Amino acid sequence: MSDSLRDQYLIPSQPYYRAVHDEVTLYEAAYSVRMPVMLKGPTGCGKTRFVEYMAWKLQKPLITVACNEDMTASDLVGRFLLDANGTRWQDGPLTVAARIGAICYLDEVVEARQDTTVVIHPLTDHRRVLPLEKKGELVSAHPDFQIVISYNPGYQSLMKDLKQSTKQRFGALDFDYPKPEIEAEIIAHESGIGKDLADKLAQIAQRSRNLKGHGLDEGISTRLLVYAGQLVAKGIDAQAACRMALVRPLTDDPDMRDTLDAAINTYF
Amino acid sequence: MSDSLRDQYLIPSQPYYRAVHDEVTLYEAAYSVRMPVMLKGPTGCGKTRFVEYMAWKLQKPLITVACNEDMTASDLVGRFLLDANGTRWQDGPLTVAARIGAICYLDEVVEARQDTTVVIHPLTDHRRVLPLEKKGELVSAHPDFQIVISYNPGYQSLMKDLKQSTKQRFGALDFDYPKPEIEAEIIAHESGIGKDLADKLAQIAQRSRNLKGHGLDEGISTRLLVYAGQLVAKGIDAQAACRMALVRPLTDDPDMRDTLDAAINTYF
Amino acid sequence: MSDSLRDQYLIPSQPYYRAVHDEVTLYEAAYSVRMPVMLKGPTGCGKTRFVEYMAWKLQKPLITVACNEDMTASDLVGRFLLDANGTRWQDGPLTVAARIGAICYLDEVVEARQDTTVVIHPLTDHRRVLPLEKKGELVSAHPDFQIVISYNPGYQSLMKDLKQSTKQRFGALDFDYPKPEIEAEIIAHESGIGKDLADKLAQIAQRSRNLKGHGLDEGISTRLLVYAGQLVAKGIDAQAACRMALVRPLTDDPDMRDTLDAAINTYF
Amino acid sequence: MSDSLRDQYLIPSQPYYRAVHDEVTLYEAAYSVRMPVMLKGPTGCGKTRFVEYMAWKLQKPLITVACNEDMTASDLVGRFLLDANGTRWQDGPLTVAARIGAICYLDEVVEARQDTTVVIHPLTDHRRVLPLEKKGELVSAHPDFQIVISYNPGYQSLMKDLKQSTKQRFGALDFDYPKPEIEAEIIAHESGIGKDLADKLAQIAQRSRNLKGHGLDEGISTRLLVYAGQLVAKGIDAQAACRMALVRPLTDDPDMRDTLDAAINTYF
Amino acid sequence: MSDSLRDQYLIPSQPYYRAVHDEVTLYEAAYSVRMPVMLKGPTGCGKTRFVEYMAWKLQKPLITVACNEDMTASDLVGRFLLDANGTRWQDGPLTVAARIGAICYLDEVVEARQDTTVVIHPLTDHRRVLPLEKKGELVSAHPDFQIVISYNPGYQSLMKDLKQSTKQRFGALDFDYPKPEIEAEIIAHESGIGKDLADKLAQIAQRSRNLKGHGLDEGISTRLLVYAGQLVAKGIDAQAACRMALVRPLTDDPDMRDTLDAAINTYF
Amino acid sequence: MSDSLRDQYLIPSQPYYRAVHDEVTLYEAAYSVRMPVMLKGPTGCGKTRFVEYMAWKLQKPLITVACNEDMTASDLVGRFLLDANGTRWQDGPLTVAARIGAICYLDEVVEARQDTTVVIHPLTDHRRVLPLEKKGELVSAHPDFQIVISYNPGYQSLMKDLKQSTKQRFGALDFDYPKPEIEAEIIAHESGIGKDLADKLAQIAQRSRNLKGHGLDEGISTRLLVYAGQLVAKGIDAQAACRMALVRPLTDDPDMRDTLDAAINTYF
Repeated sequence: MSDSLRDQYLIPSQPYYRAVHDEVTLYEAAYSVRMPVMLKGPTGCGKTRFVEYMAWKLQKPLITVACNEDMTASDLVGRFLLDANGTRWQDGPLTVAARIGAICYLDEVVEARQDTTVVIHPLTDHRRVLPLEKKGELVSAHPDFQIVISYNPGYQSLMKDLKQSTKQRFGALDFDYPKPEIEAEIIAHESGIGKDLADKLAQIAQRSRNLKGHGLDEGISTRLLVYAGQLVAKGIDAQAACRMALVRPLTDDPDMRDTLDAAINTYF
Repeated sequence: MSDSLRDQYLIPSQPYYRAVHDEVTLYEAAYSVRMPVMLKGPTGCGKTRFVEYMAWKLQKPLITVACNEDMTASDLVGRFLLDANGTRWQDGPLTVAARIGAICYLDEVVEARQDTTVVIHPLTDHRRVLPLEKKGELVSAHPDFQIVISYNPGYQSLMKDLKQSTKQRFGALDFDYPKPEIEAEIIAHESGIGKDLADKLAQIAQRSRNLKGHGLDEGISTRLLVYAGQLVAKGIDAQAACRMALVRPLTDDPDMRDTLDAAINTYF
Repeated sequence: MSDSLRDQYLIPSQPYYRAVHDEVTLYEAAYSVRMPVMLKGPTGCGKTRFVEYMAWKLQKPLITVACNEDMTASDLVGRFLLDANGTRWQDGPLTVAARIGAICYLDEVVEARQDTTVVIHPLTDHRRVLPLEKKGELVSAHPDFQIVISYNPGYQSLMKDLKQSTKQRFGALDFDYPKPEIEAEIIAHESGIGKDLADKLAQIAQRSRNLKGHGLDEGISTRLLVYAGQLVAKGIDAQAACRMALVRPLTDDPDMRDTLDAAINTYF
Repeated sequence: MSDSLRDQYLIPSQPYYRAVHDEVTLYEAAYSVRMPVMLKGPTGCGKTRFVEYMAWKLQKPLITVACNEDMTASDLVGRFLLDANGTRWQDGPLTVAARIGAICYLDEVVEARQDTTVVIHPLTDHRRVLPLEKKGELVSAHPDFQIVISYNPGYQSLMKDLKQSTKQRFGALDFDYPKPEIEAEIIAHESGIGKDLADKLAQIAQRSRNLKGHGLDEGISTRLLVYAGQLVAKGIDAQAACRMALVRPLTDDPDMRDTLDAAINTYF
Repeated sequence: MSDSLRDQYLIPSQPYYRAVHDEVTLYEAAYSVRMPVMLKGPTGCGKTRFVEYMAWKLQKPLITVACNEDMTASDLVGRFLLDANGTRWQDGPLTVAARIGAICYLDEVVEARQDTTVVIHPLTDHRRVLPLEKKGELVSAHPDFQIVISYNPGYQSLMKDLKQSTKQRFGALDFDYPKPEIEAEIIAHESGIGKDLADKLAQIAQRSRNLKGHGLDEGISTRLLVYAGQLVAKGIDAQAACRMALVRPLTDDPDMRDTLDAAINTYF
Repeated sequence: MSDSLRDQYLIPSQPYYRAVHDEVTLYEAAYSVRMPVMLKGPTGCGKTRFVEYMAWKLQKPLITVACNEDMTASDLVGRFLLDANGTRWQDGPLTVAARIGAICYLDEVVEARQDTTVVIHPLTDHRRVLPLEKKGELVSAHPDFQIVISYNPGYQSLMKDLKQSTKQRFGALDFDYPKPEIEAEIIAHESGIGKDLADKLAQIAQRSRNLKGHGLDEGISTRLLVYAGQLVAKGIDAQAACRMALVRPLTDDPDMRDTLDAAINTYF
């Protein structure tokens, strides 16, 4: 494993991350004992950004895998490829991470087939090994290696949940959308609009989040607020920007749309 | 990536598109910040034509993918092919688009397996990257690259819907069939028949759309109206043309057919 | 694409087809604007024969694909095959048809997986292209190319139906079994029996079709009537011929068989 | 296609077949016009033996395919195999039969996936062709070619039945277990036991068949009777032979077994 | 097929088998006419041992296949493998057995997909052939070849049962756990413990079998009794040995465990 | 099979294992007769550690396989790989274990497809063989070979349970979380915190386990207690450490979290 491979996965510059509670301290302690960590929280609240920030702060490479239902164990671990001289083994992202000592971030891990996730078990207990059964190799994880997974409790259902024997291998950190003052700060920073407008957008989001479970599956995320800010910064009228970036993506229900549009009209 | 590959995907001449609201302005603003865009609306109302028009207007290449249930992540991202000298990687349409800076249009994205769509996530947030996990390459999107998806809310069901974590990565524009005057203008332009006849066809469509949910799954689309006009222009009797192009494709229900035939007889 | 490939798909001699309504004229008009056409009707009523007749009349090659549930997009579009020198692309029947300007007839299209049918979408609107995503080629359809699909509304169910976004890309022609006089004419022509006997067979079929939905899934088709005629022409007793060709294939229900046998005994 | 391939499938010597009704005459007439034939009847009543007999009588090669749920269209039609020089096409049994002019017998066709059976459609109407789509070849059937399928109506269910569009391509012959006198004749001929014993076995079978639908899925088949006869001929006591060959294979229900054992005890 | 292949499958020395009824005589008669045989009975009662014993007694090679749901027809029949010089055919176990004249024992045949089992049909009637459709070869079975299947009626369900057309190809022998005296004899022989202890174990098993269907899915098998005997022979206390070998493997239900533990305490 | 392969799987140093009952003695007796052993118990209670300890004590190599739903028989047994000179067989972990005389530990065996597990049957009775059907080889197990499986009765459901014919091939040992005194000893040893703190953590776990089935799927495992200890040892406040390591991973239910947080506040 050459250093150049490791360098490719280093975060080149400090990502913008606005700390909310003690999450940075807790993560650092967890990393210092290489405890696997689970990040819980709704969509678009900053979990991915947080891992990038921590990887940058700890100066460790970060390998991110977007999990999905079709992902097989081979997609994580590696497979044999056909070559001019027969088959050649190619490490998957989890194996690369274990070899080079990266933080391996499995995004939306509940999407993966429940039983595919068992391949991470030997990496998450005292063994810290990854058996490449197809290759007949037992990879011992690099001392810097750590596993982080993300998890949206809102998706949890009878059909798709992590098994207890997986869950109980992780320390867990809760994430949520930031308080309005902090969220406005983020919107202003990311979209370049003024504090006033950013405050209003944060308050609209606040309202929508109270509708979660009362007609909305999720409230408006910080990401969408930044989109609305960007459109306004490009000269689009605030109401039109909010309709396009905050309301239309969220719901097709006419009553819900009216409710949200009315809320927007209160502010602009 | 050679320029000739890029040129192949440029729209050669201005497509006929009749703007209805502020959709062109909003799209231009969204594109200027490379915001991913979701086009919502019923079948045959002009979403595909709109993307072609915008690609032409912005002078960007356009790569269209008709999504379907069997589409795997590899169909979007690429795969290894066997060659005389072993395996050779071939980029999929999404990867090509990311490399050459095209607008990548995923048509009827709800048809794709919900979890296949997660491969677009890293391309739709601040990262703008596409990890080719099988190849071990991290593609950074070209500055011109943008993702557009289409979505027919009428198909939405418990089984097939986009996940919130996907939806909240897009600004959204609503589309619908145009008002009768504008629709008649389109029919006349596309089929070569006179304004009078085009007006009648547009009014028949109007009536059928009021039956949506009352015996019809969808009303008559603009596309079918153009078909009817074309048949008349070829000398077919208007009633026979309407039966073939507007009624028979839409429904097999005898009562519904009588209702639609009666409406047609009112006009011709 | 050589002419010899095209010639292979030309219908060599005029197929026997007995026109019933204005279907020939309507089809010719539809073909003249290359409108995709959908043929609707019960099994064995002559849809396939009609397409062959029209292909012969228009002097265009005809490529027929019997659709089935296991048919993948690759079966229609093409795939890479392994060769002495690595992989070689082989066009599927839809691609061949698009290149040589054939009429491509997708028989029993509802059998195909609903989402496999989306591959025909770009060929059925103003674009008239077929993207070979795996090969990275965009095939523009030959000016003579047209798509025809067949569809038996009797099979339609909640599980298997065409999507509106597919249906609304086709003009549609209804087919049904011909009236007794015409059907007798067909039976006599195809089996070589006399008009008298042919009339009786056509009347038996008529009776069975009234039982559709009252114990029979379908009535006796024209094809089975021709079989019965052929057996009689070979010296088999009319009752035995009818039992073998009309009753036994249709149903295993003893009451239904008695009813049909009784009807046959009325005539012979 | 060499003659040696054809010879391999000829039935070498006259199979023992005891005609029951007019099935031989009807089949000959059907074959003379190459009408596809469907043999209907319960398990082990002699359908397979009948086809072998007819193939021998007509001096045509016979190719038999035991259908099953996993059978793909490729298993019938053929596929590309990898060779030292790349891929090589290998005809499947249906294609071989079409080329050499064999009778192709698809045994228990309802077992095949309903939609796999559509590949036989173009061979069963006036076209008599088999499109090898993967190879790009259109095989015209040899003039001697005919398709025969078998079908056990007892298996028919909502899930597994032939489609009307398949059924209506066949003339049909009903088969059933022979009358006791004839069945005894068969048992004696096949097992070498005396007429007396054979009569008793045939009568036991008769009784069991009356229990079909009243605790038994099927009655005792002729095949099992021959087994019982063979065991007796090898010196096994008649009651033990009947238990092993007639009762134990048929049912595990204790009451049903008692009933059948009692019936056997009546005779021996 | 060399003799060395055949020798590999011969049972080298007489297996311990304690005959219970007339099963040895009946099997020998069945084998003498090569009648396919089905062994019915609960888990661990000696079916596998019986087949080994008979194969040894008849001096025929034995090929055993543990059936499972994922077993395809190819796993039984054979497949093409890729070689330095292209593809090479490799016989599956059923084909090897047919060629060398082995007894082919399909263990737990209901586990196999119902329709995979149809591949054995042509080997189990008068034809005694195995068509290798993929290879285009028709294997005639060696005169010594016989098929034996095992079957646990307790597993039988609506979803998983043999088809009548499969069942009626076999003579059947019932197996059950032996009577206490005989079972004790077996335990003593296999574990090396004394008759006294063996008697007690056989009586405990007896009791547990009366609980079948009243809280237990199955009673304690002979195999587990031998395990308990072996542990005692190694110096483990009888109660602890019974808990480990008889109770814990059988059930997790606390009441059931108490009942069984109490029964054990009665004897030790 | 070289010794170096065997050495790779030896446990290099004595694992920390705190014996609770007579499990070490019972396992040694079972191993001495090579009885297959099943370890039953909840997640994180030390089953894996126990097997490692026994492998170390017996000085036998240990091969561990994390079972999962997608695991095929080939993943256990081996497969052909493509090589420069055609195909090459590669043993799977079960085959390697059988050859080198390892203890083969199948972790969470209920996760494997029920019928995949039948491949271990011939290794778990008197035969002690593993047929490599695809390779045509019959592997006789090395005299040291033994199979161990683990099993969490809490996961048992109608859909996923071992078959009786599998269960009755194993002696079974029950495992549970250790008593508070012993568990505290373990926590202190593994995390380096003092006895006092460890006692408190063990008592918190005790409380949570009483909630199993009353709002919690599982109680807090020993593993999570060690995590909490490690965080405290790194300077994290005890309450925050318990929240991150004990509560957040276990449940998302707000009431349950309050109950657990309250319990924690009682101790710290």
